[in-house]
Amino acid sequence: MKLSSIATLIGADFSGVDVEIESMNTLKDANSNELSFVANAKYVKDIASSNAAAIIVDEKTKEYVPEGCVALVVEAPYWQMAVASAKFAPALEDYDSPKAIVGEGTIVSPKAEIANGARVGKNCTIMAGVYIGSNAVVGNNTILYPNVVLYRDCKIGSDCIIHAGTALGSDGFGFASDKMGMHKKIYHNGNVVIEDDVEIGSNTSVDRAVFGTTLIKQGSRLDNLIHIAHNCEIGEYSVLAGQTGLAGSSKLGRSSVFGAQSGVAGHLEIAPFNTFAARTGVTKTIKESGKVFAGFPFMDHKSWLKIQGKLSRLIK
Amino acid sequence: MKLSSIATLIGADFSGVDVEIESMNTLKDANSNELSFVANAKYVKDIASSNAAAIIVDEKTKEYVPEGCVALVVEAPYWQMAVASAKFAPALEDYDSPKAIVGEGTIVSPKAEIANGARVGKNCTIMAGVYIGSNAVVGNNTILYPNVVLYRDCKIGSDCIIHAGTALGSDGFGFASDKMGMHKKIYHNGNVVIEDDVEIGSNTSVDRAVFGTTLIKQGSRLDNLIHIAHNCEIGEYSVLAGQTGLAGSSKLGRSSVFGAQSGVAGHLEIAPFNTFAARTGVTKTIKESGKVFAGFPFMDHKSWLKIQGKLSRLIK
Amino acid sequence: MKLSSIATLIGADFSGVDVEIESMNTLKDANSNELSFVANAKYVKDIASSNAAAIIVDEKTKEYVPEGCVALVVEAPYWQMAVASAKFAPALEDYDSPKAIVGEGTIVSPKAEIANGARVGKNCTIMAGVYIGSNAVVGNNTILYPNVVLYRDCKIGSDCIIHAGTALGSDGFGFASDKMGMHKKIYHNGNVVIEDDVEIGSNTSVDRAVFGTTLIKQGSRLDNLIHIAHNCEIGEYSVLAGQTGLAGSSKLGRSSVFGAQSGVAGHLEIAPFNTFAARTGVTKTIKESGKVFAGFPFMDHKSWLKIQGKLSRLIK
Repeated sequence: MKLSSIATLIGADFSGVDVEIESMNTLKDANSNELSFVANAKYVKDIASSNAAAIIVDEKTKEYVPEGCVALVVEAPYWQMAVASAKFAPALEDYDSPKAIVGEGTIVSPKAEIANGARVGKNCTIMAGVYIGSNAVVGNNTILYPNVVLYRDCKIGSDCIIHAGTALGSDGFGFASDKMGMHKKIYHNGNVVIEDDVEIGSNTSVDRAVFGTTLIKQGSRLDNLIHIAHNCEIGEYSVLAGQTGLAGSSKLGRSSVFGAQSGVAGHLEIAPFNTFAARTGVTKTIKESGKVFAGFPFMDHKSWLKIQGKLSRLIK
Repeated sequence: MKLSSIATLIGADFSGVDVEIESMNTLKDANSNELSFVANAKYVKDIASSNAAAIIVDEKTKEYVPEGCVALVVEAPYWQMAVASAKFAPALEDYDSPKAIVGEGTIVSPKAEIANGARVGKNCTIMAGVYIGSNAVVGNNTILYPNVVLYRDCKIGSDCIIHAGTALGSDGFGFASDKMGMHKKIYHNGNVVIEDDVEIGSNTSVDRAVFGTTLIKQGSRLDNLIHIAHNCEIGEYSVLAGQTGLAGSSKLGRSSVFGAQSGVAGHLEIAPFNTFAARTGVTKTIKESGKVFAGFPFMDHKSWLKIQGKLSRLIK
Repeated sequence: MKLSSIATLIGADFSGVDVEIESMNTLKDANSNELSFVANAKYVKDIASSNAAAIIVDEKTKEYVPEGCVALVVEAPYWQMAVASAKFAPALEDYDSPKAIVGEGTIVSPKAEIANGARVGKNCTIMAGVYIGSNAVVGNNTILYPNVVLYRDCKIGSDCIIHAGTALGSDGFGFASDKMGMHKKIYHNGNVVIEDDVEIGSNTSVDRAVFGTTLIKQGSRLDNLIHIAHNCEIGEYSVLAGQTGLAGSSKLGRSSVFGAQSGVAGHLEIAPFNTFAARTGVTKTIKESGKVFAGFPFMDHKSWLKIQGKLSRLIK
């Protein structure tokens, strides 16, 4: 889409080189064919070093946009970013792509659906009711139990097991809201990548990234009914027990272990090799490793036990 | 079903006009062809103004039933209401209804199933493994991702997006129990109505009403793995983050915002424009607007922060 | 599989009678054709009375293995048990078994899949997208709503109702981990048995047992989005509200009642006729009956209310 057309779409004046914009991205990751945006003062510092072709900004942020980068000035940059995102959403299925490629030894149930443009490796088992979207990729020896859904453009590695009803690649929970509380969908044009040797339980949901990738690294184990929001990253060999939830963009280090019904707030970084008791609610970034945490708001496990002891003495 | 047959079914004496009963309903909503019940003293006040043709009551409540309304007197009104409810449950599918009507421009996967009597509007996408029940209705431009289930008689508006594996219209969690703890199913013959411009994440469950409608109003956004019990009402433009749960018959006002893993107890009313931090457990009706709450039992957010501060000083 | 081959597989020396091993089991339940293991000092006491043909042990546990039982000595018994478990996992589907048997009056959607070797009783309704695995059994009059998955070897009784998207028999969350945090899958070769007159909501997950059975007894009611881990047992007429989770091997007595978003830790036993408020987190075995509990860690409900009262006075 031409940059001038985007400007028209979002109600911004346009002057400059009218390049073809291929997609949208964060300031940090955008390349010279991509559109970015600033909707929060804390990202202003990333403007100068961005390679984006153009940036959606408001009036007072405009001055930070360097020469050679087009500033698209609007009143509500986040809302207009959402408006623009719709234009980069691919079709739900690439009906015109070539038929899916399925490797030798792979069994596909006649009741499964593999969309055009998808690729499935060797010796996989794709059971009844599975849906694999356009351009999705599955490695070798992977088992998709009945009714697993792999949305378009998402990837599963080799030697993975995904249990019944799990949805990989549903849209992240992202939208712009105006003062009246109305919402404009942010199209999530990123994907989900699941590396090799990952097992995921039944009825778990992993959302696709808004840009880039929601990543589950090799050797991880996820239980049933887990919620992984957009743009999360789960380190190698991590273990997440049932009904745990991660809010958007949080990153777990290698060998993170979460007890059941735990939660992690958004945009946090958790250092490797930490353990979290059941129902821990992590509210801050954690820089140390090798510790055990509990509670909500979380604290080290021993402190939590101490507080529970004090509380139970309160009533005597 | 004739009122006399219902009386026989539930073991009540019958005298009066033997009208045809078309369905069951609450005291407030029942019309003159409907059967109602009183199983809780707090509803006795609603008897006098009810238009129900007949009311299932126990011996001591009988006297409140006005002339012109038939009192069906039983020992356990709630249990007998459950017994009667089975007789008003429609078939799981209307095999004899006319074939579903599908609007122009709508794409239906050959692996989706649209039951007889259903209607789908224009320019929708109905992906593989979707099930749309008899008499269900879908508006225009709506996307149902793979394996979404829309139970019979339920409705989705236009411009909605429902992600993979979400179940809309499963029976509410309702049953009568006797002294030994045995249960009798209450058939949920109501439905779910989702208004226009609603997006719902993957693997979410919205239960149908016992009578009437579980209602999700326009512009709302529900995340993954959310539980909405029977007869809830979610106000316009509300936002419910992942793994939140609402117990039966609670009503959220417009622009309610719930953080992840929140919960709302049953039969509450939440005024519009309130925000709830992650994991808030709402236990009482809220009449003020524009506030932020947290904790379980819930309190205003600042008090919750104060308590957490005090608790952490306890251990020093 | 010959015992000598298992020994080779897991790197143990072998001497003794080279019997054919049919399956694996716990020390208590293993018979003379079964292999068992000791991975935790607290089970050493069960070795003497075990009927297992052979037991995987470490060097220091070897001496407890009685004559007539083969000790397979390895460095990491739990890891090697996991290695061996893979050899006893059946194929995902028994393609060569006879076609499924379906009773009179049962309606099977053409979009459902019933694998070879399965048996479905009379007057059932098997809706679109349902998958019933090899050797699975369904009783009479049972309704499986769209996209229910019943894994192979699992059983559902008569007069049951299972709502959309529920997965019965997915693998339990079990694996051995080494010092680097890498994981080896423990194949779950047990099953799930659901007795008569059980209703389960939508998008609930019930995991199969590692050995033996995950059991849901007659008359129980489970709501939506519930997580039942491997080897749990749910007593007759129990009631579990939405988003509740049970960790592995916990046993609930008859008529256990759990409010929404509750949790039970692993390996606990809960006496019959207890009630748990919403969000209770049960962390210990309960031997008394007829009580009401709340909180996390849980306590009796009155104490919990008292503590909440004290806490709210703290901030005044």
